[in-house]
Amino acid sequence: MAYDILTPQNIVSYILAIDSLRSFFGTDDISVDEIGDGNLNYVYILKSKKDAAKALIVKQAVPYLRCVGETFPLSRERMNYEIRALNTFYERSPEFIPKIHYADESMSLVVMQYLGKHIILRHGLMRGLRYPKLADDVSTYLANALFYTSSLYLQSDKKRELIDRFNSNTELCKLTEDFVFTTAYMEHETNDNKNVKDNPLAAELFADMPFKEKVLCLKYKFMTQNDALLHGDLHTGSLMVNQDETYVIDPEFAFVGPFGFDIGALLANFVNAYIHHTVVTADTDYQSWLLESIDALLEGFLQKFLRLWDQTESSALITPGFLDDATLSSFKNDFIRQILRDTVGFAGCKMARRVFGVAGVAEIRGIEDKEKRAQAEAMALSIAKRFVMEHENIGSTKDIRDLITDER
Amino acid sequence: MAYDILTPQNIVSYILAIDSLRSFFGTDDISVDEIGDGNLNYVYILKSKKDAAKALIVKQAVPYLRCVGETFPLSRERMNYEIRALNTFYERSPEFIPKIHYADESMSLVVMQYLGKHIILRHGLMRGLRYPKLADDVSTYLANALFYTSSLYLQSDKKRELIDRFNSNTELCKLTEDFVFTTAYMEHETNDNKNVKDNPLAAELFADMPFKEKVLCLKYKFMTQNDALLHGDLHTGSLMVNQDETYVIDPEFAFVGPFGFDIGALLANFVNAYIHHTVVTADTDYQSWLLESIDALLEGFLQKFLRLWDQTESSALITPGFLDDATLSSFKNDFIRQILRDTVGFAGCKMARRVFGVAGVAEIRGIEDKEKRAQAEAMALSIAKRFVMEHENIGSTKDIRDLITDER
Repeated sequence: MAYDILTPQNIVSYILAIDSLRSFFGTDDISVDEIGDGNLNYVYILKSKKDAAKALIVKQAVPYLRCVGETFPLSRERMNYEIRALNTFYERSPEFIPKIHYADESMSLVVMQYLGKHIILRHGLMRGLRYPKLADDVSTYLANALFYTSSLYLQSDKKRELIDRFNSNTELCKLTEDFVFTTAYMEHETNDNKNVKDNPLAAELFADMPFKEKVLCLKYKFMTQNDALLHGDLHTGSLMVNQDETYVIDPEFAFVGPFGFDIGALLANFVNAYIHHTVVTADTDYQSWLLESIDALLEGFLQKFLRLWDQTESSALITPGFLDDATLSSFKNDFIRQILRDTVGFAGCKMARRVFGVAGVAEIRGIEDKEKRAQAEAMALSIAKRFVMEHENIGSTKDIRDLITDER
Repeated sequence: MAYDILTPQNIVSYILAIDSLRSFFGTDDISVDEIGDGNLNYVYILKSKKDAAKALIVKQAVPYLRCVGETFPLSRERMNYEIRALNTFYERSPEFIPKIHYADESMSLVVMQYLGKHIILRHGLMRGLRYPKLADDVSTYLANALFYTSSLYLQSDKKRELIDRFNSNTELCKLTEDFVFTTAYMEHETNDNKNVKDNPLAAELFADMPFKEKVLCLKYKFMTQNDALLHGDLHTGSLMVNQDETYVIDPEFAFVGPFGFDIGALLANFVNAYIHHTVVTADTDYQSWLLESIDALLEGFLQKFLRLWDQTESSALITPGFLDDATLSSFKNDFIRQILRDTVGFAGCKMARRVFGVAGVAEIRGIEDKEKRAQAEAMALSIAKRFVMEHENIGSTKDIRDLITDER
């Protein structure tokens, strides 16, 4: 079908023309609500007026950045990558990915499970809520998503097919190259320039050449290291949670990139929450819970990733019998330690970019008290710089906790 | 046109049906000679009977490995990658790439300049011939080929388009993954098993776990690091030379991979020639010339690569103004040192695989005297192991020379 932008007026008739969706709703009257907080896309909730449990999300990409408008063109093909990534991740982790009811690449449209009983993790963490299953769920998701799409599991032909399906997500990768690795550390029109102006912290960051040199190394790794299929934007705004369940949403930035990038994004955003609760609420119990969650998430990931690897006899990389067991085990341990190092480096970039760059996070930029906001920014930059400068020396998750808490 | 295997009987009429080729030959009678030494493809020389200078090479891929036969199927699409690579490299280095007169991907066929006054570099080196322009030519070719297809020159969209055009060269990449990085270091049916049997050197190599662990790291880098468009099989059999000219041929293994791989292949094959002239001819002058050529080739590459980089203001990686000049210069120096390290690591694999693996090289496996052959094999393995084990500590080309000559 030819591409056409759906509206609250025509969306119901469009949806009811699709067999599977018509049978989902039956003959019920349907309400339409637009969710206003999407930066990139139009998102609607369609709900049966008779039975509120019968609800679906309809998400459509438009050929521009929705939050700016048609003056910021952005190819709507990004939805293709989101659909492909949701399907790929769903194969291995159906419990953490919203079920797709319908997808149409030509319409840049996906219809999926409505997560009505979940909230955005970022909001939950800011409110000081604890999620007992979160670290376990997220580490399982990450281990599955990264391991099963890597050359440690796939054979070479399958890995290359995977790269083919995501390689052209150029525009969204370019956004990351620019916003995470470049413009946030130099004078740039997209920065939060009201805050940059006359701010000694910004001046110091923009002039910190040893830091920026290491950021450039990490940018190069981001651009050229094709380890596994990444979500590509896995901050705490891309997780929907409640006490029982965890869902990963919005993988439109998906591409085949370095193992540490998604984990680094999560680490960065957990640390941002930790900073928020240090500076704003001073809730030391919750700070401890966050630190423990970081630890559990990282340890859980490493152990589960290693377990999946141990269960896999043969892959593009590993030919059975090539190494003896002790050497293979040493190779694997070095390998996952390198993932941990990259994770910390990428986390440093992800944190630092949020301070002065485009699209800050609520934990820091949302702090209304000017002094406290500056304090949070200083803390974020201090940890971010240590993450970036010292990531190559990380030996264990304990070292990461020390970098967060032994703030200089 | 539908695919059809050309034969000495129908090739002339096929060629004369193509306008540009008919006007190349005019009304001259044409002779057909098959070149028998191709492992993979059929190669013919078409020559005017009136004017021997009017000659062209016709190369066609068949859907199997020519030297084995139809029992070893190999997709003829490999010719697409050869044609694309020849065209890409020709853009930047027309003086080092045979001119393409005609190409047809559907026929897996390319018609190109006949290099009648050149010989395969491997043969020249074995005969102790000196090529005064070789190191300069090859280093220029390598700097152009690698720099201009990397994220240090291209913007992100062009780099991803390049990956798209070569990503599916799966089968030939897999041959390298298997033969260069895996099967040559373990019991395997494709090895030179007559030599492996009861050979303590083979037993030692196959059991050398620290060496094989590092080979596995290099294999992973080969599979996942997409720095630049590689020739993919740049041994001294892929260069045709005379005193004045140097040509690069046969890039059917082309793919976007790590910078150091092509340079490493050349380094390995120069060292193999050095070993040959140490063990067989004992020609110390020529040994010195080879060592100087290695040095000139590597230094030339690094300097030319750096010069191209210095001439490039902006790329996918580099945003003007991001780093100050001193830091950018330090970043570049670290970067090319890393290329040199990878080069040495890959060279070690390329050398070691030739000892017991499939497809040995004439310099070593071709030595008829059994004792001398064993001596050359021991020397090759000794240098190869040091290359692999110590490549991460290489600081300069001087260190490489030391690894070659301070044989333990």
